[in-house]
Amino acid sequence: MPYRIDETHDPKLESWIESANDPNTDFPIQNLPLCRFAPPHEHGLCDHLGVRIGDTILDLQELAYTLPIVGDTPGPAEADMFAGENEPSLLSSFNGPLGHAIRARLQHVLAATNRGKFESIVRENLHAVEDCEFDPPAVSRDYTDFYASLFHATNVGSMFRPDNPILPNYKHIPIGYHGRASSIVPSGTPIIRPLGQKAPPDDPSSTGSSAGPSFGPCSMLDYELEVGAVIARGNELGNTIPLAEAEDHILGLCLVNDWSARDLQKWEYQPLGPFLAKNFATTISPYIVTMEALAPFRCPAFTRDPADPRPLPYLSNENNERAGGFDITLEVYLASEQMRTRGMSPIRLSRGGFKDMYWTLAQMLTHHASNGCNMQPGDLIASGTVSGRTRDARGCMLELTWNGDPFANPPVKAPGTSRTPIELPTGEKRVFLADGDEVIIRGYCEREGFRRIGFGECRGIIQPARA
Amino acid sequence: MPYRIDETHDPKLESWIESANDPNTDFPIQNLPLCRFAPPHEHGLCDHLGVRIGDTILDLQELAYTLPIVGDTPGPAEADMFAGENEPSLLSSFNGPLGHAIRARLQHVLAATNRGKFESIVRENLHAVEDCEFDPPAVSRDYTDFYASLFHATNVGSMFRPDNPILPNYKHIPIGYHGRASSIVPSGTPIIRPLGQKAPPDDPSSTGSSAGPSFGPCSMLDYELEVGAVIARGNELGNTIPLAEAEDHILGLCLVNDWSARDLQKWEYQPLGPFLAKNFATTISPYIVTMEALAPFRCPAFTRDPADPRPLPYLSNENNERAGGFDITLEVYLASEQMRTRGMSPIRLSRGGFKDMYWTLAQMLTHHASNGCNMQPGDLIASGTVSGRTRDARGCMLELTWNGDPFANPPVKAPGTSRTPIELPTGEKRVFLADGDEVIIRGYCEREGFRRIGFGECRGIIQPARA
Repeated sequence: MPYRIDETHDPKLESWIESANDPNTDFPIQNLPLCRFAPPHEHGLCDHLGVRIGDTILDLQELAYTLPIVGDTPGPAEADMFAGENEPSLLSSFNGPLGHAIRARLQHVLAATNRGKFESIVRENLHAVEDCEFDPPAVSRDYTDFYASLFHATNVGSMFRPDNPILPNYKHIPIGYHGRASSIVPSGTPIIRPLGQKAPPDDPSSTGSSAGPSFGPCSMLDYELEVGAVIARGNELGNTIPLAEAEDHILGLCLVNDWSARDLQKWEYQPLGPFLAKNFATTISPYIVTMEALAPFRCPAFTRDPADPRPLPYLSNENNERAGGFDITLEVYLASEQMRTRGMSPIRLSRGGFKDMYWTLAQMLTHHASNGCNMQPGDLIASGTVSGRTRDARGCMLELTWNGDPFANPPVKAPGTSRTPIELPTGEKRVFLADGDEVIIRGYCEREGFRRIGFGECRGIIQPARA
Repeated sequence: MPYRIDETHDPKLESWIESANDPNTDFPIQNLPLCRFAPPHEHGLCDHLGVRIGDTILDLQELAYTLPIVGDTPGPAEADMFAGENEPSLLSSFNGPLGHAIRARLQHVLAATNRGKFESIVRENLHAVEDCEFDPPAVSRDYTDFYASLFHATNVGSMFRPDNPILPNYKHIPIGYHGRASSIVPSGTPIIRPLGQKAPPDDPSSTGSSAGPSFGPCSMLDYELEVGAVIARGNELGNTIPLAEAEDHILGLCLVNDWSARDLQKWEYQPLGPFLAKNFATTISPYIVTMEALAPFRCPAFTRDPADPRPLPYLSNENNERAGGFDITLEVYLASEQMRTRGMSPIRLSRGGFKDMYWTLAQMLTHHASNGCNMQPGDLIASGTVSGRTRDARGCMLELTWNGDPFANPPVKAPGTSRTPIELPTGEKRVFLADGDEVIIRGYCEREGFRRIGFGECRGIIQPARA
């Protein structure tokens, strides 16, 4: 593992930015996640790199004009490193000494003990977070989505293939597929309900035997709670990324909502996988929490059942087993339009843990490059839906309501489960998402003896389908 | 359809560049396909936009300094339009009057009748094609691969699902999936045989019942003959592209070889589709033949069997049925290392027609955006393997040798076919590709009363797997 716990994780460190010292903040001085943002005077052009601290964004590009961050001299050359268009080059050398130097330097200038020395200079480049606009935290040319939760795969498999939920390859291969990069959108972007083809009715006698598929608004719109890894350094086409080096290529993590149109998915996905069911939108949270910030929250990889096969040698090593996981708590909240109108708080739909993933991110990345496929700085690798053992740890509505398709025929049944609508405090019921529903994903890490750090939020409100 | 046959397609037009008047050239003055290239003095930095004519490349960026192409005044502003980094902006407004003006203007300065007026100026910006280097003709952020040949789908389906070769969705949905953009490589790039996971032996008794999957070099390496469409103008996320407008979004076509590792594919592709079996490399030809150049070679869409379902209304209109196809002849050649050493010409493996595709490119694009998925200038949409009715029109080795897997158990059988190795003139046999094999794809259009135009070549030589 590339990072050890060091003095930058000291829980006693405090900042002269008071909001960073709130014990409930996601963004204490120990976190310092990266973002791409537009300061208030540059509406909409999110080409500055920044760092979130407390309730503020520190503009690294502007700061570097007056205070050196990496080098010895402030000015345009220093600032250029933190210009949005140079992000790929910054990322490609971020992991290791450079990233550590930036982290240590920013902690130094933001530390409560150095208030007198730095506050007046730094404050000019601090913006209230609500005054800023955000893009996805990296420009991803390629986006890959995995399927790394055994619990999710088992639940979904049980619905669609009751006799054979887990396919023979699952415990050998971190299953993944390519997503659409163009439709990755920043948190807060409205999600328009997609139109698409849906399967013919299962019972042809009800509508005449010639009934074909129909085209119309998705009626089984779902979210998927996922964690994303952003690539720092890439690999050349034809080269691989050995497991021992995989984490050197990961810049950090963020939250991802891989919106899914289940009715479109069911009809289109054979034989080449999900396509239009997924590529209408993928929401990503604004901040990349660096691997270094996450060092105190590493945990063992998933404990495989003794009867499970061992991963092949290229996907297996002792470090990965011992500390390849991340102990991140993940929560999904929902607020209907009616709830918001009536001033009600969002209700929590699930709380799960990223440590429950069957495959580690390092294994996913190593597998991805095992055939020589080339990664590039900024590429996004998402984990697939994060679901846990228990019902309240299921990371999508398909699982929570157990395929809440009122039209399924024959009805979907699985041992010990039945279709269960979600009841909202307004009395509204949900089997899938309704127009006006807002989905909010949150993630955070807590450990005795360390400062809590978090990922912020990944949000989206469903808008009606276009005519 | 956006383009009519006009005076730019006049077969009597000749150029003062003699090689463009060769009746066998792919690149007469009626073609003028676009490319991204490096002129001889800028080795490897392919950031100039050019046009191929005869055996030469005309550097549009340099030409614009001395001769206006679009505007009235030559110079840096005019040249900037044709700088590689500005390609997306050029493409986004290329279809329509701008592209037509460029085509007409270039025909004017290259016409034999205008030799005296333009040759001396233009020659300074002409480079012999063998002195140039080429990148893929557009920078594709996203790459989508379809599966639009019913013959290919039927052949492959017969091998893997003998009782059920064509799935119920096939004739309703242009099936597609996302490919990997980072591993799109220009013609001529060596293709390194990928490593990957392969299924456990089918007969466990032969190796003990605990035999699991293995990891090693692909032993069923294949090519796939495809046609690619490059997006000119995109659409905003959430908007669709109606069928009647689809071709306004397509800049032109090129050749694509979607290299495939069949053993990796067989083991990994359920349930989310092909992944590492495809993303180690996709070769693309250097030239985009514009929609305008292709106008004389349009043909009706595939004639569906009367028993087939009609496409849903969003995928159907009269123009598409009448002229949604392209009459392009496609050929695949192979030369083994031994053949090249002995000075033998490549042998032709197949000759097929793009007019045999079940779905048109316009239908593929309209379907792709039907859920609001956004296209961007430069995006690549490939057709999937182009196979025809007859054996010699099959577009991949999997079909030509009928799954030439000597280890298949039970042996693959289908009515009227059997596994057939390909015999090379050296006596070598092939069921899949061997190290040192070169695959060459060619494509061209011919029609009585018009000049032949072509796509050039899409080539790649297989290199041994890395240790």
